[in-house]
Amino acid sequence: MANKEFMRRAIELAARNMRDYEGGPFGALIVRDGRVLAEGHNRVTSCNDPTAHAEVVAIREACARLETFALEGASIYTSCEPCPMCLAAIYWARIERIYFANTRADVAAIGFDDDFLYREIGLPLRERSIPAQRLLGDEALAVFREWLELPGRTLY
Amino acid sequence: MANKEFMRRAIELAARNMRDYEGGPFGALIVRDGRVLAEGHNRVTSCNDPTAHAEVVAIREACARLETFALEGASIYTSCEPCPMCLAAIYWARIERIYFANTRADVAAIGFDDDFLYREIGLPLRERSIPAQRLLGDEALAVFREWLELPGRTLY
Repeated sequence: MANKEFMRRAIELAARNMRDYEGGPFGALIVRDGRVLAEGHNRVTSCNDPTAHAEVVAIREACARLETFALEGASIYTSCEPCPMCLAAIYWARIERIYFANTRADVAAIGFDDDFLYREIGLPLRERSIPAQRLLGDEALAVFREWLELPGRTLY
Repeated sequence: MANKEFMRRAIELAARNMRDYEGGPFGALIVRDGRVLAEGHNRVTSCNDPTAHAEVVAIREACARLETFALEGASIYTSCEPCPMCLAAIYWARIERIYFANTRADVAAIGFDDDFLYREIGLPLRERSIPAQRLLGDEALAVFREWLELPGRTLY
């Protein structure tokens, strides 16, 4: 399939998901070598999972099917520009190319927080709307030091 | 329990998880009204899920138990400052306070990408290391318009 056909499928998933009251109007596909590895749609409200955005659902599904935690060489087609959670998940999954349809501005215009979150995440800790406080840094650092010495640890 | 005791438990989860080879040295707790709603530890490598960071695991577990997609009034205790994926998940979950132990600099020093991701996410689309391309914006926008008119939709 061509790029546009993959995106048309992501948009179709978004529309169907919304009409089935599964969650927000968002769909995504993970594709590699012209083959769909997994599809995802937003399931936040139907599955009681605030992390179940279409991109995260598709990434988890592709990784589960392939029994891997890294999708090198894969692309994601998403019906909307990823929110910061999904964008970071795309990086962690080692996906190499993003195609999107609706933009961050489009999704702000229908009432979602994506654009607000991009601004929050760029702020220093003290200026964000959720207060953050550091505790027991020394005790936690000892665990990080132990990680560096752990024999045969799996890096990701 | 006092704040430090909750954090000590998050650090204990991080250490145990690492020593059991379940994933990276990270643990988290969701707490409300002095009660632990859920615990989480990093399971990226053992569960083949790049989104299974301690915070995301704890949020999903708390929401599943309470059958809700929003954790108003809750705090998160995490053994390390959340990466952008986890920070955005905390916002989406409506958690109201963050306690962390290790910092973004500490986790960069042991080889994880958190600090790199904070910088990437702040860049304009064209300057990021993962290329992003827009396709079929008009077709996708029609779905967003339909969302606004959808009777009885669940907002989140």
